[in-house]
Amino acid sequence: MDDLTGPLTQGNRRALSRAITLIESTRPDHRARAMALLAELPRRQALRIGLSGTPGVGKSTFIETFGKMLTAQGLKVVVLAVDPSSARSGGSILGDKTRMETLARDPMAFIRPSPSRAELGGVARRTRETVRLCEAAGFDVVLIETVGVGQSETLVADMSDLFILLLAPAGGDELQGVKRGIMEIADIILVNKADGTLRDTALRTVADYAGALRLLRKRPHDPEGFPRALPVSAVTGEGLARSWDAMQELTGWRRETGHFDARRAEQARQWFLSELRAGLLARLDAPGVRARLRETGDSVARGAVDPDSAARQMLDWLGAGQPE
Amino acid sequence: MDDLTGPLTQGNRRALSRAITLIESTRPDHRARAMALLAELPRRQALRIGLSGTPGVGKSTFIETFGKMLTAQGLKVVVLAVDPSSARSGGSILGDKTRMETLARDPMAFIRPSPSRAELGGVARRTRETVRLCEAAGFDVVLIETVGVGQSETLVADMSDLFILLLAPAGGDELQGVKRGIMEIADIILVNKADGTLRDTALRTVADYAGALRLLRKRPHDPEGFPRALPVSAVTGEGLARSWDAMQELTGWRRETGHFDARRAEQARQWFLSELRAGLLARLDAPGVRARLRETGDSVARGAVDPDSAARQMLDWLGAGQPE
Repeated sequence: MDDLTGPLTQGNRRALSRAITLIESTRPDHRARAMALLAELPRRQALRIGLSGTPGVGKSTFIETFGKMLTAQGLKVVVLAVDPSSARSGGSILGDKTRMETLARDPMAFIRPSPSRAELGGVARRTRETVRLCEAAGFDVVLIETVGVGQSETLVADMSDLFILLLAPAGGDELQGVKRGIMEIADIILVNKADGTLRDTALRTVADYAGALRLLRKRPHDPEGFPRALPVSAVTGEGLARSWDAMQELTGWRRETGHFDARRAEQARQWFLSELRAGLLARLDAPGVRARLRETGDSVARGAVDPDSAARQMLDWLGAGQPE
Repeated sequence: MDDLTGPLTQGNRRALSRAITLIESTRPDHRARAMALLAELPRRQALRIGLSGTPGVGKSTFIETFGKMLTAQGLKVVVLAVDPSSARSGGSILGDKTRMETLARDPMAFIRPSPSRAELGGVARRTRETVRLCEAAGFDVVLIETVGVGQSETLVADMSDLFILLLAPAGGDELQGVKRGIMEIADIILVNKADGTLRDTALRTVADYAGALRLLRKRPHDPEGFPRALPVSAVTGEGLARSWDAMQELTGWRRETGHFDARRAEQARQWFLSELRAGLLARLDAPGVRARLRETGDSVARGAVDPDSAARQMLDWLGAGQPE
């Protein structure tokens, strides 16, 4: 048994941190140890909540206030981030502990920034594994935050039990700014900043989104009244208890009807397939293969060989048979 | 030498049609013949123009009027479609010959609907090969049309020398509806319907887009004044000659500076890599593999084995080594 397994399952934060670092490492020995660790950890279940919102919507403040409310109820909360900007630039705009100072100091909470990886798929893989570590460590709620850019929202929704969209108060015209695909995967839309001078605008925005949500096809895994739009204020805390009630209502319904387990089963299947595909493509990263890949790519670029023939030759060389 | 090679290189339309059908077939013997055919065809160059526009923007009318203008100048024009809806539903909203009746009857023009394939990547692969057939058949201009949905625009831009965005006249607020990523790959934005009562709105929209384009970073492969926004009317034909001038100006500059060849070289390299990846993943489609893939997926969904371990076991079985 791994040295980390004992302390980690007892909720030791230092052990959890070290285990996550192991998960995020690309060193083959670290990777092997991480795999073995994951295999021997007990299976526990936290509620996995995906949360998306564009920069400026008040996401950090929301997570801080919402997280504090949950820990005050005795729940252990972890905050993870899937950050497409870190995947691209190496710098992270999410998960910075200084953004959530109060929550970061809370012994019931654990905040971990987005892993820096070359590509978003890699960030997603590591985050899925980190979620399992946090569950084994006895956390009750895992909040996975992301920004509304590109594919990161779909990736986060695919590893969450619930997907929450945090939006700013806006005029009716701007509703179009939210991509239809994202509306379709959102279980609950929260309109933030429903306080002070923006309160009325926020309430109107909630009504607008509620209308837009009604136009979307009803989903079989949703009870009456979902997906739902609600106003919140991360600053005053107003509406947060009601949002948590809605999340619990939806989760309870899904658990009773079997949709909760079915969703997790399907997510596991997709995870397996995506790991498998990544594993097949990883052959191209082997040192001997890389050099030949570059050479062949150069020949193709020069026009010395056409792309199809070059691909077939390379596949034959890899022993991977016909491309079709 | 293939029976089709002779007539196809002489521009025989029937031979071209049959060769495209061969390219689109998934039958292994058809595929082998298509590969051999592509390898022996002479390399000729047409100007490949990618064209995107959402439904309702008047794309069919534009292609018809623009295509007729080119054939009247003695140019042989082909129209291909990359249709994400056909990839999903099997039905095609693009490339329907009845949409472009006049052009379809023009002996200098050739219109081919989007191939129906299970996924967009497959449509893109076949379209790239069809472009090469059309070039070998002596066409001067290859128009590849798509709708502004999902990834199809990027796919089309990646197989074109120029990428044109056709837009409708709109209020300033709606400019946001065009995704920044698409603006960034557009070489020329054409605002259609610059006629009748919409003329003034169209001209204002052109000015708005011209302003938005100036805010984007200048690209090294562009001369002064590009990317450019221009008004056109597919109905009256106004502005079409000017757009063609702009396309030729940009192409001429890129040819002189070497950007034209560099772009094609890079596209060929990317095509090679994507064929190679598709070939590696095609192992999962082999009959013996499929059954095991389904079984293992079921075990993962039941929770009998975790996704990572299952993927590693399957990779070992495939002889594809470690996932990392």
